[in-house]
Amino acid sequence: MTKIPAHLKSAADPVFEFNRQIIDATLPYTVAYKLNTAFYEALGTSGWESLKKTFEYIPADCLKIADAKRGDIGNTSAMYAKAFFEHLKADALTIAPYMGEDSIRPFLQFADKWTILLAHTSNPGSADFQLLESKATDRRLYEEVILKARTWATPEQLMFVVGATRADKLKHIRSLAPDYFFLVPGIGAQGGNLDEVSRNALTRDCGLLVNASRSIIYASSANDFAEAAAREAQKVQQQMATYLKLI
Amino acid sequence: MTKIPAHLKSAADPVFEFNRQIIDATLPYTVAYKLNTAFYEALGTSGWESLKKTFEYIPADCLKIADAKRGDIGNTSAMYAKAFFEHLKADALTIAPYMGEDSIRPFLQFADKWTILLAHTSNPGSADFQLLESKATDRRLYEEVILKARTWATPEQLMFVVGATRADKLKHIRSLAPDYFFLVPGIGAQGGNLDEVSRNALTRDCGLLVNASRSIIYASSANDFAEAAAREAQKVQQQMATYLKLI
Repeated sequence: MTKIPAHLKSAADPVFEFNRQIIDATLPYTVAYKLNTAFYEALGTSGWESLKKTFEYIPADCLKIADAKRGDIGNTSAMYAKAFFEHLKADALTIAPYMGEDSIRPFLQFADKWTILLAHTSNPGSADFQLLESKATDRRLYEEVILKARTWATPEQLMFVVGATRADKLKHIRSLAPDYFFLVPGIGAQGGNLDEVSRNALTRDCGLLVNASRSIIYASSANDFAEAAAREAQKVQQQMATYLKLI
Repeated sequence: MTKIPAHLKSAADPVFEFNRQIIDATLPYTVAYKLNTAFYEALGTSGWESLKKTFEYIPADCLKIADAKRGDIGNTSAMYAKAFFEHLKADALTIAPYMGEDSIRPFLQFADKWTILLAHTSNPGSADFQLLESKATDRRLYEEVILKARTWATPEQLMFVVGATRADKLKHIRSLAPDYFFLVPGIGAQGGNLDEVSRNALTRDCGLLVNASRSIIYASSANDFAEAAAREAQKVQQQMATYLKLI
């Protein structure tokens, strides 16, 4: 909200107005929009309303991702699934794996929806637990998450969050889940490298949803924010098109 | 919402009206109220509004726990902290540890607020990842979570979620964090046993927040739901008082 250009702040719903203009400008270069729910929740009820209006505004041929990192016991996860898949009409939702299979199942029961499970993230703290190596299998926690989750859901139901700043590991992670899409955040502001990501994790079906957030939506804080966002989105799209030709 | 007694459904905000009557009736027997955010999110904007009104209604001398299982990279966790600690004015928030230290830090920076970190939950899926045994330390993931988190935060900032249906393990878990409060869900509907929990995990300062949810709030679905809830809450409180005398 503090980063929304000043001239929008008098709009009835400045957050939605910002999003609407970003979507209009970037649509030619975009296959998916990922909304980070925390930034809406921080605004309270009006934020939740802006989130809903934004999901409604995104055209149906774009994937609508709620980046919400949810996950709880079965009956509670079922409520989160209802919140995001039914109420907000998101197509996909990010989920944290700590509570295991029954915390993930309720999301998988929605036809034509995607569960995007955290596997190996790119933040400094990812090393705290995700890299813990199992005595029984010699595999690290994030590897266990990927291999177990593969037995729970098909590539038509499930994707994995794989951080872009660990591009050296991407080839290995791809070998663990050759047919699953990876959601790769961290291109742009978080320092991820699209070239490395593509060289190591592209598949014949693409297999990658590469996400740039701050580098696009905050490309300019002036009246030209939407045009600036479009330019940044186009850059990423053109780079991606180059890699896709190599498949 | 489907479980709210029929006669409340004509109220302006049936969810808040239900909560208000439950709080009024159970207040003499209660030290904390834990609101499971998923059930509010599933109702959309109006649910978020009911959640806010409920937190506002709970008296200041009761701990207000948002059971939301959040956690994301630092700048996003900071937004979740804002949402729950500032906007909703909760005192405590449950957090999932998968993303590590920097996903937890933003919550710890709020004075007089509590971070309640998932350690060993009681659902069937808890075995999927929480029990993974580390090759380097011989410790299980949930033990690593407790021991690392202890180095990040004092017992005045941090609690752990420890499931009640694993009472056999509670003594061991208590030895890992002798001075920290445990939030123990799963008494009642989830099958947890208050006697076992108390014998194995009570400390000189009590050290336990024992939670019963469905067994209290859905004790009756008729007009007497609030009185029935009070009776169930009183039962748990009386049992707890017995154990506290033994300290």
